[in-house]
Amino acid sequence: MTGVKRSNEKNLMIFSGRAHIALAEEVAYQLGTQIVPTDFRTFANSETYVRFQESVRGSDAFVIQSHTAPINEWIMEHLIMIDAAKRASAKRITTVVPFYGYARQDKKSLGREPITARLLADMFKAAGADRLIAVDLHTEQIAGFFDGPVDHLQAIPILTEYINAKYDEENLCVVSPDAGRIKVAEKWAARLGGTPLAFIHKTRDVHQANKSVANRVVGEVKDRLCILVDDMIDSGGTICQAADALMNEGASGVVIVATHAILSGSAVERLRDSVAQEVVVTNTLPIPEDKRFAKLTELSIAPLIGDAIREVFEDGSVTSLFDEE
Amino acid sequence: MTGVKRSNEKNLMIFSGRAHIALAEEVAYQLGTQIVPTDFRTFANSETYVRFQESVRGSDAFVIQSHTAPINEWIMEHLIMIDAAKRASAKRITTVVPFYGYARQDKKSLGREPITARLLADMFKAAGADRLIAVDLHTEQIAGFFDGPVDHLQAIPILTEYINAKYDEENLCVVSPDAGRIKVAEKWAARLGGTPLAFIHKTRDVHQANKSVANRVVGEVKDRLCILVDDMIDSGGTICQAADALMNEGASGVVIVATHAILSGSAVERLRDSVAQEVVVTNTLPIPEDKRFAKLTELSIAPLIGDAIREVFEDGSVTSLFDEE
Amino acid sequence: MTGVKRSNEKNLMIFSGRAHIALAEEVAYQLGTQIVPTDFRTFANSETYVRFQESVRGSDAFVIQSHTAPINEWIMEHLIMIDAAKRASAKRITTVVPFYGYARQDKKSLGREPITARLLADMFKAAGADRLIAVDLHTEQIAGFFDGPVDHLQAIPILTEYINAKYDEENLCVVSPDAGRIKVAEKWAARLGGTPLAFIHKTRDVHQANKSVANRVVGEVKDRLCILVDDMIDSGGTICQAADALMNEGASGVVIVATHAILSGSAVERLRDSVAQEVVVTNTLPIPEDKRFAKLTELSIAPLIGDAIREVFEDGSVTSLFDEE
Amino acid sequence: MTGVKRSNEKNLMIFSGRAHIALAEEVAYQLGTQIVPTDFRTFANSETYVRFQESVRGSDAFVIQSHTAPINEWIMEHLIMIDAAKRASAKRITTVVPFYGYARQDKKSLGREPITARLLADMFKAAGADRLIAVDLHTEQIAGFFDGPVDHLQAIPILTEYINAKYDEENLCVVSPDAGRIKVAEKWAARLGGTPLAFIHKTRDVHQANKSVANRVVGEVKDRLCILVDDMIDSGGTICQAADALMNEGASGVVIVATHAILSGSAVERLRDSVAQEVVVTNTLPIPEDKRFAKLTELSIAPLIGDAIREVFEDGSVTSLFDEE
Amino acid sequence: MTGVKRSNEKNLMIFSGRAHIALAEEVAYQLGTQIVPTDFRTFANSETYVRFQESVRGSDAFVIQSHTAPINEWIMEHLIMIDAAKRASAKRITTVVPFYGYARQDKKSLGREPITARLLADMFKAAGADRLIAVDLHTEQIAGFFDGPVDHLQAIPILTEYINAKYDEENLCVVSPDAGRIKVAEKWAARLGGTPLAFIHKTRDVHQANKSVANRVVGEVKDRLCILVDDMIDSGGTICQAADALMNEGASGVVIVATHAILSGSAVERLRDSVAQEVVVTNTLPIPEDKRFAKLTELSIAPLIGDAIREVFEDGSVTSLFDEE
Amino acid sequence: MTGVKRSNEKNLMIFSGRAHIALAEEVAYQLGTQIVPTDFRTFANSETYVRFQESVRGSDAFVIQSHTAPINEWIMEHLIMIDAAKRASAKRITTVVPFYGYARQDKKSLGREPITARLLADMFKAAGADRLIAVDLHTEQIAGFFDGPVDHLQAIPILTEYINAKYDEENLCVVSPDAGRIKVAEKWAARLGGTPLAFIHKTRDVHQANKSVANRVVGEVKDRLCILVDDMIDSGGTICQAADALMNEGASGVVIVATHAILSGSAVERLRDSVAQEVVVTNTLPIPEDKRFAKLTELSIAPLIGDAIREVFEDGSVTSLFDEE
Repeated sequence: MTGVKRSNEKNLMIFSGRAHIALAEEVAYQLGTQIVPTDFRTFANSETYVRFQESVRGSDAFVIQSHTAPINEWIMEHLIMIDAAKRASAKRITTVVPFYGYARQDKKSLGREPITARLLADMFKAAGADRLIAVDLHTEQIAGFFDGPVDHLQAIPILTEYINAKYDEENLCVVSPDAGRIKVAEKWAARLGGTPLAFIHKTRDVHQANKSVANRVVGEVKDRLCILVDDMIDSGGTICQAADALMNEGASGVVIVATHAILSGSAVERLRDSVAQEVVVTNTLPIPEDKRFAKLTELSIAPLIGDAIREVFEDGSVTSLFDEE
Repeated sequence: MTGVKRSNEKNLMIFSGRAHIALAEEVAYQLGTQIVPTDFRTFANSETYVRFQESVRGSDAFVIQSHTAPINEWIMEHLIMIDAAKRASAKRITTVVPFYGYARQDKKSLGREPITARLLADMFKAAGADRLIAVDLHTEQIAGFFDGPVDHLQAIPILTEYINAKYDEENLCVVSPDAGRIKVAEKWAARLGGTPLAFIHKTRDVHQANKSVANRVVGEVKDRLCILVDDMIDSGGTICQAADALMNEGASGVVIVATHAILSGSAVERLRDSVAQEVVVTNTLPIPEDKRFAKLTELSIAPLIGDAIREVFEDGSVTSLFDEE
Repeated sequence: MTGVKRSNEKNLMIFSGRAHIALAEEVAYQLGTQIVPTDFRTFANSETYVRFQESVRGSDAFVIQSHTAPINEWIMEHLIMIDAAKRASAKRITTVVPFYGYARQDKKSLGREPITARLLADMFKAAGADRLIAVDLHTEQIAGFFDGPVDHLQAIPILTEYINAKYDEENLCVVSPDAGRIKVAEKWAARLGGTPLAFIHKTRDVHQANKSVANRVVGEVKDRLCILVDDMIDSGGTICQAADALMNEGASGVVIVATHAILSGSAVERLRDSVAQEVVVTNTLPIPEDKRFAKLTELSIAPLIGDAIREVFEDGSVTSLFDEE
Repeated sequence: MTGVKRSNEKNLMIFSGRAHIALAEEVAYQLGTQIVPTDFRTFANSETYVRFQESVRGSDAFVIQSHTAPINEWIMEHLIMIDAAKRASAKRITTVVPFYGYARQDKKSLGREPITARLLADMFKAAGADRLIAVDLHTEQIAGFFDGPVDHLQAIPILTEYINAKYDEENLCVVSPDAGRIKVAEKWAARLGGTPLAFIHKTRDVHQANKSVANRVVGEVKDRLCILVDDMIDSGGTICQAADALMNEGASGVVIVATHAILSGSAVERLRDSVAQEVVVTNTLPIPEDKRFAKLTELSIAPLIGDAIREVFEDGSVTSLFDEE
Repeated sequence: MTGVKRSNEKNLMIFSGRAHIALAEEVAYQLGTQIVPTDFRTFANSETYVRFQESVRGSDAFVIQSHTAPINEWIMEHLIMIDAAKRASAKRITTVVPFYGYARQDKKSLGREPITARLLADMFKAAGADRLIAVDLHTEQIAGFFDGPVDHLQAIPILTEYINAKYDEENLCVVSPDAGRIKVAEKWAARLGGTPLAFIHKTRDVHQANKSVANRVVGEVKDRLCILVDDMIDSGGTICQAADALMNEGASGVVIVATHAILSGSAVERLRDSVAQEVVVTNTLPIPEDKRFAKLTELSIAPLIGDAIREVFEDGSVTSLFDEE
Repeated sequence: MTGVKRSNEKNLMIFSGRAHIALAEEVAYQLGTQIVPTDFRTFANSETYVRFQESVRGSDAFVIQSHTAPINEWIMEHLIMIDAAKRASAKRITTVVPFYGYARQDKKSLGREPITARLLADMFKAAGADRLIAVDLHTEQIAGFFDGPVDHLQAIPILTEYINAKYDEENLCVVSPDAGRIKVAEKWAARLGGTPLAFIHKTRDVHQANKSVANRVVGEVKDRLCILVDDMIDSGGTICQAADALMNEGASGVVIVATHAILSGSAVERLRDSVAQEVVVTNTLPIPEDKRFAKLTELSIAPLIGDAIREVFEDGSVTSLFDEE
């Protein structure tokens, strides 16, 4: 028989775009390696240039980029890195998206709109991504947009562990700022050991459609510390009004919790000046120094992403990371 | 210059599988034509055989099948018809799905589940469908599963027109049986001219997660005729309990309204024996004679599908069919 | 150099749909493992639900389903399982089809027919299958329908070994029930050590086309034990008439042999009451208890499928399984 | 409303490679046009160059090439022409293959063989062909290899019309040179008005497999004029031996009929010197002057191809061309 | 026969992103229409939103965007618009790229680089573009990156017509700033009626590789007005040095001509202060007011793009636009 | 947990078509193996047949074919081999193309031309190639035509090493026969240690476009040994005229160097009779005995290809093979 035989080794490599290097470094560190050294340049006419400084041939490549502003810049850089990894013969490419851009454009609300969340999935595929890892997608259906395996991670164990450790569970109440997201609050309540639930009903009012909008609290929040949970804080308006409503209903305090800290526009001011006593987020998105404020607690999502990458690399189970006893 | 020039004509043809021929006939009639005569056979070993009896070359083909039980039979027949139309040189193929099967399997709730709604979209594409027309998809994101144009029709104008004509709007109240679907109820309220809203909160109870489930009514329904709206009625358990809850809260009556009448298991018994005074559905799914009962009103979706097909065929606007003044 | 190195292991996992679990269990047992535990549910509206109970990440997955009646149910279940395995990050997916449904619809006999055997191949691909293993496809060209590697297994070694062991080869004669399949009979004759050949000529009659059809025996069968071979027995009409014709020509006996025992309609009655002294089939398709009868001998195809899977998994040679000295 | 409206015209254009220009010219003439003038060059290093001399933008392009020897040259030229038409914005491209090369390599007879007939179909698709027209494919399954509509034309009406007109049908007998092709002979017999059938059984002999091969005639041919029909004549050995066998059985004469006149090697000598009184073929393949001989009758396939192209262009029915009353 | 027949009309629609609306308006005006009214929004987190205000169903859509800085923003907007047009059922989508971004990244100069020009072509395809129109691509091979028809327009007729009209051809000399682009200069010389050629040889020097770089003028430029031609002016350094070299060699004057006026960094200062007496460019890229200067002449590319779109829409010939007598 | 675990081995296998077996044998020998034994046949009608004689299941297959004349024959054989390897379950297929056919047809110089170099890339992909290895592609952009990783090897280290060893570098001068390829000459000059550069300017003449063409030497070549470098020698006309021009300018001698020795038409005569004292090429293409002549030096490219294959197989770095200190 002809041929040359060799044992087969696999090699995990972590790549990071420029959007949120600190997170990628933390992930790499946890996995016992570093980010692959990479040349980045922005040419005079604003074109992006990328080159890896080490051979990536045969690697199991994880290309991390979080889609923060300027989002189109970072998405393009992400795609260009995947293209470079593909052409450099990476064996398998997983696009890792701590925050998946355009996730809210996941359907046509009106005719002639795009479905940009699907477009993004298709562009990852066209560029060469075989797999996708994302954290707390805006709707779970987005995982079905990508034509390949998706590991959809949840920040809830990290967030609830923090809340459990800090606050006395006897006194808590989980609140959803939106009736449509009450199922997430139910998961929270279960994780926190059977905490009561409430939610904010954005009502126009319930008795008259399309009139003035008020925030009505459904559930008993009086004298309770309300854990107000959402997937993202963008401009912060909705959630701060929700906090006000809770206090008006006699809540003893409000803690705002969200996975993705977009913090656009005057979000920081709103949150800082809000009635909430603490704002807990993860670092799926970078929070620049000037957006940090006293009440803000930033938990690291890196251990979760690192664990997931290890399971993916070692053919373990990502599902098991989220199993509750 | 060489070549032979001809003016270009287009030809609309309507095809129907065996799942719900009556609806397709109605659609064809409305468009001024008939269903293309087709041979169907089920072979001894249960294989499906399909053959069109007329040339379909160059046609703008609309292949209608509603995914009723036995759903896998009808989906396979649907795919086989699309394959036959493609190989017979239809110019463009639109798969028309009044009820889209597996729509509730649109995400992975647990690891190692399929996303069958996406699989179905991919199979339509693989078989040869260029476009998709569907009515009231379970979630709007499903439209993003299909790699091509989707016309997502809404039954709401048909249903609200009926309610408006029959019931005095002064006295109405729109109720959502599920907090997660309250946005649909809001659309209803708007269509009915500003009717008050309410919804059923399936509570475990709000104060204790994972305990006993009760149906709590949120909103003022007392002395009002409640229009209880959902996208589908499957086994009917949830919606009948919701109706009970409304009556317990002092509603003057309940009218159940849904687009898709699946009516599985003992749904008919439940609805017939329920407190609802009327059950209004469309014929997106066939309702056999033995599933009809006195309180059931079946409105035809055929005019809507027919209008949409005409707009698609004539390069008009489907969006305009749903414009509200 | 950055990166984390690991040795690369591969993991064979056997999955089975509900169509013919006994066969899959036998295959798994032979390979020294069990079927991956799987939840199956059929929802009230007849939708299929599937979930694997173990992590399948990185596995070399073999998904077995035999396309017995109700064939469309089992094909859809097969596709849904492949989708679930793909989304759960199986490394490679081989669809194993002991009996490939719709194999007889492999061409257009008339205009406007589908080519459903090709459609099925495309759907396997669209769902995520990388490879195909099938047994005795109706025509060998079907292997060319699948866009990927196909291992086309033959039951002939199993069947001829049985015949060789039981019957005295001196006295045999191999008979094809159809002139178009005489090449298969030639393979049989070679495997049985140079046995004479005959075949049934379904003649209308040879001298007058489109008249009455008679079964004319070509070849000397007098005083011989005729081994009547075909790929499948569906309703059994043709093959039982062939057996009659052989006895009429003075055969000393008839043994019917086929790979696939579809046994539709009154096949069991026909075979049981036929002149054949034995009917030998494999278990590519399940034979329920009430379809078994005294003369029926069922040989297991599991060792062949098991061997093929092992060769595929271990990068051996499937071709070598069929080499004759 | 913005936009510029125009009526839509379609334009049929006929292209031909260099393999068999005479046939393409005949087809174009019949359709009332000419072949699109095209530059062909073969560069010094044997590369092929093609350029169309007229705009083909928006055309309904039919690219004709018959796969005669040197077959790889002409297949490559065919693919290059399709590429050029695609890049020049032809609206729809139909590859027209009077003789489809590699049709006999439509399955793996042994492990590690290619399926070149499928490869050819995939290459047509990759180059840009939307549709395929072919004449008398070696097996009908090949039509299922192409991922798009296939119009599979049959020469039988042309050939039988000639035989009917020239020979007295009372005296005829249709003979298949191969048991595996007897269904084609049955179609012939039907077309000729119920003529008797016979076939040659290439027997090793029927009673002893793998021994000496003889040609046994099955059916009564004595005193009859035998119409010996096949799809192609390659080296001519088999069919000339069949003709001998028929004469030995007392046939009054033999007429050999085939669609495709490959005429490789010493085919011309064999046929010229054979007992056959006439050899009837079509011009799907070019027959150079030095391969013509007195007994050879060449019927034109151009009217059939021309009719099919017209039907395709005008959205008519190709199936109807083969309907028998 | 069933079916509904209609005559087939086509409808040209022009879409424009926000990068260079003035150009698109000019193109639309020339075609006798306007840009399709479109909603553009940039959300708080920098996501782009697009919606067309008119039905685009069935249209022949031309989506114009010129890739100026911030280039990644405009490329993403371009892709999102194409997605929206596809999902809104445009019949055919042509992406029109007056300046194709990343064109200089058309190869790997070093290992582990991307080929971003190819990636961009693939992303257009993935988003839904059927065709591509571009002006003066950096290398002609880029047209081969797109999987579909490409109309590659040349600005040379517009530019030479201007030069011909303004300057006395007797006195001219065409100069290429780079030896590698001398073929473009040859085309210029031909267009200008046989003008002499020269080029700048960037020499390190010719006799010593990798030493100091000087600009050596090859060809007689003394006392001649030099037309210095290139495809783009980015930062302007190279071309201004070339102009200096020409003056040093005794040229009577220099006119700089280029298709694409990128004008990055201090390009404007360099050009304004250069020895060139005029700088002639087209408006493939927008030139904001503060980048205009006295010596700058901007010719409109809109008539060329408009003509090309008309030819594409009306199935005419784009090639003919560039035919020289 | 179910499943069977095995360690994962990889197996390098070398395949070669019939175009240039000697080169493939050398490559295989260097890698410590032999070419996989393969049956090749050319059928009577000129069809190609290929079958591998050993199992290739799971192999890392490198399929080598150099595209020499008759180029279409060998390209088709190449594609057929890839198809066979894919269907025989090779794990990964790399098409190795020492000389890539049709590389000069990498763009449309005129309307309605094909881009055959892209077509070839697409056909490799359609046949089943995952990766491409090529040597000195005519333009680097061609690497962007293939949808997958490309290892683009350069012969320059082999060629310059030979020149360095044989000729005294003090006296050398590197000459490009074409202004458009001067960058290649620059690389040469650097490799040879700072040798002076010159090039031939094919001038019509520089002062009058489209007039008579002359070869003007740019750079000081007097009394120097000129190394005249190009990527390929086809008919040899251009390069021999360049050599003449150099001698006319007083060069002390000329050595012609090229990677690809196509040697079409009367190339051998031209080169043999030319003023060049040596012609140095590699064996990317086979040079038959009757095309060898005294002045011709043939260097083996096999070590380079062998090294590259080893790096690819062992997940090393191909880029590192070309690193200069």
